[in-house]
Amino acid sequence: MFFASDNSGPVPQAVLDVMAEANTGHMMGYGADPLMDEVRLRIRDLFEAPEAAVHLAATGTAANALALATLIEPFDTVFCTPMAHIEEDECNAPEFYTGGAKLTLVEGADRMTPDALTRAIESQGNRGVHGPRRGAVSITQVTEMGNVYTLPELKALCDVSKSYGLPVHLDGARFANAAVSLGCSPAEMTWKLGVDVAVFGGTKNGLMGVEAVVFFDPTKAWEFELRRKRGGHLFSKHRYLSAQMAAYLRGDLWHDLAQRANDKAAHLHDGIRKRNDVQIVNDVTANMIFFNAPRALHQTLQAAGAKYHVSGGLNGDADVLLRGRLVCDWSIPDAEIDRFVSLLTTA
Amino acid sequence: MFFASDNSGPVPQAVLDVMAEANTGHMMGYGADPLMDEVRLRIRDLFEAPEAAVHLAATGTAANALALATLIEPFDTVFCTPMAHIEEDECNAPEFYTGGAKLTLVEGADRMTPDALTRAIESQGNRGVHGPRRGAVSITQVTEMGNVYTLPELKALCDVSKSYGLPVHLDGARFANAAVSLGCSPAEMTWKLGVDVAVFGGTKNGLMGVEAVVFFDPTKAWEFELRRKRGGHLFSKHRYLSAQMAAYLRGDLWHDLAQRANDKAAHLHDGIRKRNDVQIVNDVTANMIFFNAPRALHQTLQAAGAKYHVSGGLNGDADVLLRGRLVCDWSIPDAEIDRFVSLLTTA
Amino acid sequence: MFFASDNSGPVPQAVLDVMAEANTGHMMGYGADPLMDEVRLRIRDLFEAPEAAVHLAATGTAANALALATLIEPFDTVFCTPMAHIEEDECNAPEFYTGGAKLTLVEGADRMTPDALTRAIESQGNRGVHGPRRGAVSITQVTEMGNVYTLPELKALCDVSKSYGLPVHLDGARFANAAVSLGCSPAEMTWKLGVDVAVFGGTKNGLMGVEAVVFFDPTKAWEFELRRKRGGHLFSKHRYLSAQMAAYLRGDLWHDLAQRANDKAAHLHDGIRKRNDVQIVNDVTANMIFFNAPRALHQTLQAAGAKYHVSGGLNGDADVLLRGRLVCDWSIPDAEIDRFVSLLTTA
Amino acid sequence: MFFASDNSGPVPQAVLDVMAEANTGHMMGYGADPLMDEVRLRIRDLFEAPEAAVHLAATGTAANALALATLIEPFDTVFCTPMAHIEEDECNAPEFYTGGAKLTLVEGADRMTPDALTRAIESQGNRGVHGPRRGAVSITQVTEMGNVYTLPELKALCDVSKSYGLPVHLDGARFANAAVSLGCSPAEMTWKLGVDVAVFGGTKNGLMGVEAVVFFDPTKAWEFELRRKRGGHLFSKHRYLSAQMAAYLRGDLWHDLAQRANDKAAHLHDGIRKRNDVQIVNDVTANMIFFNAPRALHQTLQAAGAKYHVSGGLNGDADVLLRGRLVCDWSIPDAEIDRFVSLLTTA
Repeated sequence: MFFASDNSGPVPQAVLDVMAEANTGHMMGYGADPLMDEVRLRIRDLFEAPEAAVHLAATGTAANALALATLIEPFDTVFCTPMAHIEEDECNAPEFYTGGAKLTLVEGADRMTPDALTRAIESQGNRGVHGPRRGAVSITQVTEMGNVYTLPELKALCDVSKSYGLPVHLDGARFANAAVSLGCSPAEMTWKLGVDVAVFGGTKNGLMGVEAVVFFDPTKAWEFELRRKRGGHLFSKHRYLSAQMAAYLRGDLWHDLAQRANDKAAHLHDGIRKRNDVQIVNDVTANMIFFNAPRALHQTLQAAGAKYHVSGGLNGDADVLLRGRLVCDWSIPDAEIDRFVSLLTTA
Repeated sequence: MFFASDNSGPVPQAVLDVMAEANTGHMMGYGADPLMDEVRLRIRDLFEAPEAAVHLAATGTAANALALATLIEPFDTVFCTPMAHIEEDECNAPEFYTGGAKLTLVEGADRMTPDALTRAIESQGNRGVHGPRRGAVSITQVTEMGNVYTLPELKALCDVSKSYGLPVHLDGARFANAAVSLGCSPAEMTWKLGVDVAVFGGTKNGLMGVEAVVFFDPTKAWEFELRRKRGGHLFSKHRYLSAQMAAYLRGDLWHDLAQRANDKAAHLHDGIRKRNDVQIVNDVTANMIFFNAPRALHQTLQAAGAKYHVSGGLNGDADVLLRGRLVCDWSIPDAEIDRFVSLLTTA
Repeated sequence: MFFASDNSGPVPQAVLDVMAEANTGHMMGYGADPLMDEVRLRIRDLFEAPEAAVHLAATGTAANALALATLIEPFDTVFCTPMAHIEEDECNAPEFYTGGAKLTLVEGADRMTPDALTRAIESQGNRGVHGPRRGAVSITQVTEMGNVYTLPELKALCDVSKSYGLPVHLDGARFANAAVSLGCSPAEMTWKLGVDVAVFGGTKNGLMGVEAVVFFDPTKAWEFELRRKRGGHLFSKHRYLSAQMAAYLRGDLWHDLAQRANDKAAHLHDGIRKRNDVQIVNDVTANMIFFNAPRALHQTLQAAGAKYHVSGGLNGDADVLLRGRLVCDWSIPDAEIDRFVSLLTTA
Repeated sequence: MFFASDNSGPVPQAVLDVMAEANTGHMMGYGADPLMDEVRLRIRDLFEAPEAAVHLAATGTAANALALATLIEPFDTVFCTPMAHIEEDECNAPEFYTGGAKLTLVEGADRMTPDALTRAIESQGNRGVHGPRRGAVSITQVTEMGNVYTLPELKALCDVSKSYGLPVHLDGARFANAAVSLGCSPAEMTWKLGVDVAVFGGTKNGLMGVEAVVFFDPTKAWEFELRRKRGGHLFSKHRYLSAQMAAYLRGDLWHDLAQRANDKAAHLHDGIRKRNDVQIVNDVTANMIFFNAPRALHQTLQAAGAKYHVSGGLNGDADVLLRGRLVCDWSIPDAEIDRFVSLLTTA
């Protein structure tokens, strides 16, 4: 019953298979492998973006930081939420890669609203040379709290950004979970709304460690390449990144894996919401559930073997409400989901 | 007949096997996986360094840049040769990771001498606040030209460094090939001579993409961790890096692979030196051969399917001597070596 | 009636005199001038800190950014208020000089409270390698809103910082105005409370452009020197910086100038608070007044020649309250203060 | 007899006068002062460049580093000589300001030749993403060894740069001395040859600390402004920089001062070359003389009170030739020149 993260599970056999398939003979390195050609074509096709520049990076932090560094200048600021991965979980990687740009936090915790974004942008526009220049807007889909922006919501944020001439970066570490949740195509969730660069995440959805960075305007593709190399993120044996992403794209594996993860979360959700003493915090349509429950319940669940994050220690007053986070990846056995739900019912 | 690089071949089945073995269930991420515990113990054992801090990175550029950034300050300079990978092949990654430190080139092309190193260090020590501070010495073993420093040679360079109080970084992208060539232990080639940080390369010797960065003094281990995360080089599913390195260490696979690569190069070398019209440029004791040969010979070899770098175009005066570079990895079939040697004999 | 800023007035004749006095013959550069020796001794004496390292910089942005860069690492974060100069008015200079560190904003706008500081520090301490490391606390005295922390208030903030092992940086662009307001000595406002590095500002208090950066622990003095040179802030003809600061220190000119500025602000304050339709926003004990007044009043004052910042345009509904900022420097003629007060009384 | 540097003398009274003239009343800061308007017009006029962007910086290091950072990207390299100030005397400031770009040293010590420049550029163009991109060419006029490029020599270097599409930066710390030496106009020495950005130095030629950075194409003027602020080099009381530069430009003071300095050096030169045991190293047409002389002569000169740099200690074998460097600024009394020459004749 491992619900601690979606970056802790195994990869599907199909991924291993393509990696093994790639493991023969000598091949050009540094992204010149034929599998990367396949990946490029498939992503352009998937995103209905025949001109898009497509690059791979092995971590989400690298993908985000490189994308932002390519979009903006060191004297700029990036608008994001206080809970954004780029703000909270990347140990200053965006500041590092951009050469010292700032992140301006848009008020509100998790989901950005057009009004709050507008206020944040306005707050940075009146100081001339004294404050940072407005640089870019970074939106996370699925959000850190497991919420999924609707397409109109995303559109509204992109519209605000565009009205200020700002490019939009989409942190799509859980891109697939969002697309499945919305039932939309990658194109509908990105450039059709105004997204300029999307990180199409693979690592949290079944790959060993690959994210695709998709620039819908390929003008800066070479700059990205140079920045990636400079960051030490260009793999000589690139074929093993390509192979993972190729496996992910073939037969829409990315979609299937996300569907599975979302379904498992939905099943958990059904179980949880039956309890009166539990409050669900987010809109559960992707693969994450945030819920407030009495410490006693957390104690029972974890004692029975459930692994997930709880804010606040497990020892103390049994009645106090503590927030738990459940994340499902594609690989959690259904039996474990059932067992967790059953625990919820009987605890 | 692929001799273009040792970063273009497949990985041994043993590596795939441990990766598959690692591919079960959920596991703590970010380096807290049990396989990393194994790797840490094995490397400490191999290097006879029970206190050493051991970190993995997926590329050599990252390993080098992170190691140097941890050793020095942005107002320092690193002493290296003009052909060093950190100078020529990392697109300013050392400058980036160190926050803008300089590389001071030690005169002479490939192998650093103690005298030249001394001169270079002295050239930077007389300007007080105006010039950069002396930061570190970076030595590459095997060198970019395929030469292997003897242990006394390395010792002499370390002694010069220590006499100025400078830490020594060993770029060991081909560490295994050197150790095999010298018949020495990893400890004998590193801390016993005065090396402070060694990059124990795996990627050029049969792994998909893993290097171990070994700090013999673990004081700055946590700083390295923070810098690695900040660089986007901390893998959430770290187990797949650990697995590769574990496979590499188990049963001394690293040694076997390097032995094979060196043997193949020796075999090639035997063939080449039989020809009067070819001049071998380097001391071939590892896995690389640099040779000057008439363009006509290069044309014949490449027309027959041999793949390797030649400086200067293949079209032109047949008698002109052009430099070729042959690199062997563990995987080149012996039959292809034989075929190449046979071509040499008959061409 | 110029109240727009305290960085827009002339310098006292005494400063010009010492600069002229310094303008004879050849002198060692780069801080080795005899006037710098005088400055160092005087500042150590003034701060009762015989070991302190004393450096000059020509701008407050440079002084702050260099001080912070010397205190922390690029993977750290600095705690400051949302209105701090380092956050709002330095165009990412702190991020630049620190190599990409972050600023974590302490809740509340202007004055930091110990509780808010504690919460901010706690918010950054639970993410291990994922979030930035806690780096330093930066306090501004006088605050951007013209408030002066009492010594116990400063002490409480230093105590919180020290309880987390964090060094304290004091942005003292208006250091003198605060010391005069509190009637305390420089030592009482700095190291006796726990401040590690203080910027003793001169530019806003009558100098052309000089700030002293005072490190009470001189361990990192040489690092500061290297960073200052690297930032292009080491003046070859350093004597002209020294001369300004020497003039500032001789006969406690710094104190007299700040006393004058504060007195002028007090006089203005007396005038303003007589009006019922005006609300004073800050505690006016230094040289700045923030006040909310009907637009009509602002229109009248500015039409009569008063120059100061008003938030919101001058055109529009006459009754709307708009915030004005009045800043006094030492040089404003008393007659102009009287005239402004008189305008307030009759308008 | 102070010949140690041209950054150690006083400033002419005319500079103090304009600074005093500027020292009245309140004035807009940050470059919006009327004196800066005068400076801008005068420089555009002087350089026959009505569109040029003109910015001031207080140090040459800042001027150079900011100019280069505006021209290139962090993954680029700048071509310069091994003795260039940006390489030897700025403690990694160019690397810092550019975000980690590299300096590629053009073979040969002091004066760059078109062939050597071409070879250096070619050496960096063949590695694709692996090596740095070609960024800019930086030329120093007068050179560090006191030589002055002729206009055709400069033109040839600019032509090479342009043939690779590279912008040219002119480090003109001694711009005035060169222009006087060549008898040419500022325009003839810059944009008419292909220079893109010129640093028009004032500090070494009689100002307290001001350099003008002149971009002949103003496209990046705003970027420069932001970078200058971010570097802490925007002065609030900018008028005191403007005043210096205005004084420098009025009545062609810059030209007079450089003429004086060059004349003094010529006079020294006349004296030195009469001695058979002294070898002049550079072409003395500006304000610097490098000469090899027996240690005994250096001992005599310095014992008599002459101050200048000698490479190698003054104690030792009297016959050994040591290199001395004499630099004249505008302010050295003619009597001291005479005295030095007289010492040379009689020693």
